[in-house]
Amino acid sequence: MFMLERERIDSTFKKVKAQSANFLTLINLSLGALALLFMINNDLKIGFILIFLAGLFDRFDGMVARKLNIESEFGKQLDSLCDLISFGIAPAFLIYQAVLHQFGVPGMIFTIIFIVCGAIRLARFNITEFTGSFVGVPITVAGCLMAAAYLSINFVPAFFFMFLTIGLSFLMISTISVKKQ
Amino acid sequence: MFMLERERIDSTFKKVKAQSANFLTLINLSLGALALLFMINNDLKIGFILIFLAGLFDRFDGMVARKLNIESEFGKQLDSLCDLISFGIAPAFLIYQAVLHQFGVPGMIFTIIFIVCGAIRLARFNITEFTGSFVGVPITVAGCLMAAAYLSINFVPAFFFMFLTIGLSFLMISTISVKKQ
Repeated sequence: MFMLERERIDSTFKKVKAQSANFLTLINLSLGALALLFMINNDLKIGFILIFLAGLFDRFDGMVARKLNIESEFGKQLDSLCDLISFGIAPAFLIYQAVLHQFGVPGMIFTIIFIVCGAIRLARFNITEFTGSFVGVPITVAGCLMAAAYLSINFVPAFFFMFLTIGLSFLMISTISVKKQ
Repeated sequence: MFMLERERIDSTFKKVKAQSANFLTLINLSLGALALLFMINNDLKIGFILIFLAGLFDRFDGMVARKLNIESEFGKQLDSLCDLISFGIAPAFLIYQAVLHQFGVPGMIFTIIFIVCGAIRLARFNITEFTGSFVGVPITVAGCLMAAAYLSINFVPAFFFMFLTIGLSFLMISTISVKKQ
């Protein structure tokens, strides 16, 4: 009976522990969605800050999952869905709202290409066994570079952002090997 | 030699066939992303139409995959990522831009809850074996209902949309069993 009670407590503790990493992932997702809401209201600076905050939580959830040894298939799936929002859609919309909208339809197409390539990268990542290196630039890296580029909008000609968007898109779906830091 | 050549042609044909369903999924995703771009510019009617067009392609890709017997793990992953955009973020933003923004912070929180619950629903779906019924209302159904509600904004009081958003959110993560049509 004592053993059973102990097992029950252990199992509850394990569940709480397991959810801790997923909780961080959901904060990351919420920050990404909040960034989009601020960007809809043309509040790009707050959107920019929220994307980097999401990036911080993205580092945390993986670290927590590995440290506590609670990596799960559910967590991996949730992480990908979350990455698509925080590092796919949010940075693409930041640069679209800040610069690319000037280009009209081509600006829209390039923004969509970035999101599509991000989704392809994530789907491919989810079905491959991880061996220490990523195939193709991770969407987190591409998304953070895209968001960071926002700081240079006053110093760099607008067409540079078209090249950046399409360049990062292709780097995500390329077969370049990137070692995990 | 003839056999080898035939196998090569067969394999190329299979690859093209396999990509046909994924191509439809990517059109669905592009329509969802385009809907978001139109909604950023406050063009809600076009956003609404694009969400339903995405819904049409979502029916197609599954049908094509099953008919051609080319259901793949990559296709399943891509489909989920795509569903989160076209039936999670896009309808949530449509209703936020149309009505919920009036409620300030609570309106933002409810919009984010819808997206978070959609992501949880998709992550759970991806790790469970499909047995003919869905557990929880699918995000495609919740998203299309949410988008359809846009047609009633002139006839229904604004707070109804707060209830609708939170209600659909919980239906997605509930354990209600929904039979596949």
